[in-house]
Order: sequence, then structure tokens, then C-alpha cells
Amino acid sequence: MATASRPRVGHIQFLNCLPIYWGLVRSGALLDVELTKDTPDRLNDMLVAGELDIGPISLVEYLRNADDLLLLPDLAVGSDGPVLSVNLVSQVPLADLEGRRVALGSTSRTSVLLARMWLAEVHGVAPDYFACPPDLTTMLLEADAAVLIGDAALRATYDAPRHGLDVYDLGQVWRQWTGLPMVFAVWAVRRDYAEANPGLVKDVHNAFVRSRDDALAHVEEVAAQAARWEVFDAATLATYFRTLDFSLGPRQLDGLVEFARRCAATGAVPAAVTPAFAAI
Amino acid sequence: MATASRPRVGHIQFLNCLPIYWGLVRSGALLDVELTKDTPDRLNDMLVAGELDIGPISLVEYLRNADDLLLLPDLAVGSDGPVLSVNLVSQVPLADLEGRRVALGSTSRTSVLLARMWLAEVHGVAPDYFACPPDLTTMLLEADAAVLIGDAALRATYDAPRHGLDVYDLGQVWRQWTGLPMVFAVWAVRRDYAEANPGLVKDVHNAFVRSRDDALAHVEEVAAQAARWEVFDAATLATYFRTLDFSLGPRQLDGLVEFARRCAATGAVPAAVTPAFAAI
Repeated sequence: MATASRPRVGHIQFLNCLPIYWGLVRSGALLDVELTKDTPDRLNDMLVAGELDIGPISLVEYLRNADDLLLLPDLAVGSDGPVLSVNLVSQVPLADLEGRRVALGSTSRTSVLLARMWLAEVHGVAPDYFACPPDLTTMLLEADAAVLIGDAALRATYDAPRHGLDVYDLGQVWRQWTGLPMVFAVWAVRRDYAEANPGLVKDVHNAFVRSRDDALAHVEEVAAQAARWEVFDAATLATYFRTLDFSLGPRQLDGLVEFARRCAATGAVPAAVTPAFAAI
Repeated sequence: MATASRPRVGHIQFLNCLPIYWGLVRSGALLDVELTKDTPDRLNDMLVAGELDIGPISLVEYLRNADDLLLLPDLAVGSDGPVLSVNLVSQVPLADLEGRRVALGSTSRTSVLLARMWLAEVHGVAPDYFACPPDLTTMLLEADAAVLIGDAALRATYDAPRHGLDVYDLGQVWRQWTGLPMVFAVWAVRRDYAEANPGLVKDVHNAFVRSRDDALAHVEEVAAQAARWEVFDAATLATYFRTLDFSLGPRQLDGLVEFARRCAATGAVPAAVTPAFAAI
């Protein structure tokens, strides 16, 4: 009476991935996976530790663990221009940040690396970075600028300019700097799991891609349902969901490789990672 | 920009509640709750501790905490006759169990109390009970009989008789003893939450009732999907799902009150609990 186990799959419990969850619920695919909803950093750790078989992973963490992981094609969280929810908020001109304190209200290693590289290479400044909880008011009491991601960043996009703060959208920053889309997170499967369970990996990949497509085809409906529970209204949420880029096509892959190359040059990730995809 | 929070709702991650989860996925209701899937004993503790707003709770734990909880109408896990997944398995005639060891491979306080009361009052025996993991083979190396619930008990229903063991279905035992259905778990909402959020409680209750009705209308489909992942075949699962009684009508309520009365007489729960329902 031996039987298969449901694939252990991660899902990001942030607004940015709600469309993908919405589609998973609609399709009934949840019944065939053991889903863990959690924050991006905890899901990163679980996938790397082998506590999940398949899941989203921060681009930087994927690059650091590429030997153990295979990418799922055609699926990511990124932006081709503004992303709205990954920001640097500053009280002073960026050129003045040399040696000044910058609060990292984020456990996202990808966003933090992007901000650091951009400030160093484009603005020539090396601030004094420190980590803290993602509350903009508190952060700006202790620092001249702050890096934010997720729902707190999305709020800052709309609120901070009214308080005279400069908001730099890091998706837009990357696009202007390199001409490429930014990929913040990818979906990966553990290599050993993919080799042993190619059919299940294909099923999970199909479920996520169908979910993404279904949600994007019904963005107004997703936004209206989410607005019941979120601090953002339906119109703001619909704009956000449309702004995010959930694809991983040739241009996104170019953006990924370019980010990997620049990170490797700083020593933050291993050099010469060649993205390898699971056979789907 | 203040907003409501999704109700924190529990769900039993056992086969016996899969039909109810199946319907929640089908209806999309999962998008409007913060669902915690866990074992019955952990969900009991979370609801009592106020870490969940609404969820299933073992009948005995409901009776012990009735001051803080209100029942949701028309929803339970029970049986009106055999339940298939709550068993006493014995190697000897029951009358011989006096002073002998009986393994409790279950954290279910309701099933354990039912087994103890039945052995004491009907068979006049007071065995030496001890708790252990729910593995029948190991249990019967150390004990003359074992109380099992859930998937291990369902397996024992089919396998144990072939090994010459006597299997007593405790749902059937209760029915023969009292003429009434047995209610193993109810759904409850914390009183303070129900007072503050009557509309959300009504929404969650509707979602569960619709889910139950939808699953029961598609039992073959539920069973076929579950059989992909479970050690039981689709026919066995369909029989099991049809055998369970997910209702809480007048007869089930009589069974609940009768169980409460008998438990109170042993001192295991407070006397004179009058079940109070949430206004739906």
C-alpha cells in the first residue's frame, strides 16, 4: 500500500504573490500539494535546507545555491520598469549618503544588494547600513534613508512623497541602469527531487503557470477580493498586480544573468552561475 | 486605512476532514480566511488559547471550555453507527482486560474517554492505560489492547481482523450503548470574536457548510483525488467519507448532550454544560 507524497511546495504570503495563490485556489491545485505559506526569507531557508521540494526563492539565494537547485521556466516575481514595492526612501540627496546611516527594513537579500550596488556604482556612496524592522517612521528617525520591500514599500510609494521624502523605485532604477527587467525571485525545485519526480514537478509547474495566467485574466476580481482584507483599495491593488512581472522569458533571463554578473563582481555571490532549468 | 483581518480558522489535517477542505478549495473560500491546517490536539489548544478565532475542537475540549466558546450550528465530525476510524483493538476478550495494559495511541481525549467509560460501565473492567505513538504492531507488543483514531484506525479496521484481532468500532459501540449518534468534534468560535464579528462568523460558517455539502455531492471525485496520495484506494475512501456524519442536527445534539452527561458523571468534564450556539 505504498503511495506517493504530495510535493512540499512554498508560497510567498505577501500581496505580490496573492494572484498566484488566487489561481491555485480557483484551479483546485491546492489539493495536490502540501503548501507552506510563509515570508520569503523563511521559504528561502526551507528550500535550501530541503524542507521544501519546490518554491519561490530570492534571486540572490538561488545564485548562492544553484548547485542544488533547478529553475522552473516561465515563472518569477519581477518588474520591467517600476515595481512599486521595492524602494529606497531618502530624506537627503543620494550623493549625501556617503558614511550616513541607511536602514535596511527588509530581509530580502536581493533588494538590499541591488540598493547597495546602485548607490555604490551609480552614486559613488558607501553608506553605513544597518538592519531593522520595516517601519518607515521609525527607520527615518534613526537613518537618512531606508530600503523597504513588500507591503510597507507599497504604502511608502503612495505616502512618502506627500511627506517630502524622495522615493526611488528599485525596479525602475535597475531598468534605467541596465535597460533590463529585474527578477527579484524565481521558482526552483531541488535537483534531487526533480530527478526522482519529474512528473510531479511538471504538475506543480503547470499549476503555478495556470494560476498566474488565470489571475492575470481576472485582475479586477483578484483585487476586489483582496481589498476586503488589505489596507489598499481595489484600484491600487489592480495597478500593482498588473505592474508586477510574473514571467521569466528571454529578456527576464538576461536581467537575471546581468544581476548575477554584477553581484559576482562584488563577491556577494559565486561567479559564473549558469542558470539551469528543470525539464518540464 | 484601517481594515479587517481575515478570520483565523483551523482545519483538521486528517482524512476525516478532507471532504470539508475539498469544498473550501472548490468554492474559493480559502482566499477569505487565514487557514491553519494541523492535528486535532494542536488545533484544540490554539482555539482555547485564542490563537484561532474559529475551528474544529474535540467534543471533550469544547465541554471543558464552553464558557469561552460558541458552537457553529449544523457542522460536526461524528457517526451514526460505525465510524471506521475510532477503534479499540484487542488481543483478548474485553472482560479479561481488568488490570491489563491498554495502549492509547491517540491524543484524542474524546475517543479515549469514550473507550474508558465503555470498558468501565459496560464491561466492568479498569485496565492500566498508557499513552504511546499510534503504531498498532508496537502497541500490541506492549499491551493487550489499543485505542486508535484517524488513519491508523482506518487501516486497523481493514487489516486487524485478518490477524485474528478483535476490532471494536467506537462509533458503533456508542450507538449500541445509547441509541444515539456520536459526535467526536464540533466547530466552535470564540465568544468574544463572535460578538465582535458576527458577519465574518456567518461567512465562515456558510463556507464550511457549503464545502461539506459540495464534497458530499461529489464523494467519488473527492475519493479519487485523495487516493492519489493516500494508502487507501478510492472505493475505501468513498465508503469512509459516506460513513462519517458531518451534521449536527437534533439527534446529534442529543448524542452530544448524553456524552457530556456521562463524562460529567465521571468527573472528566464540568457538570451541566448547556451547548450555546453562535447566532448565524
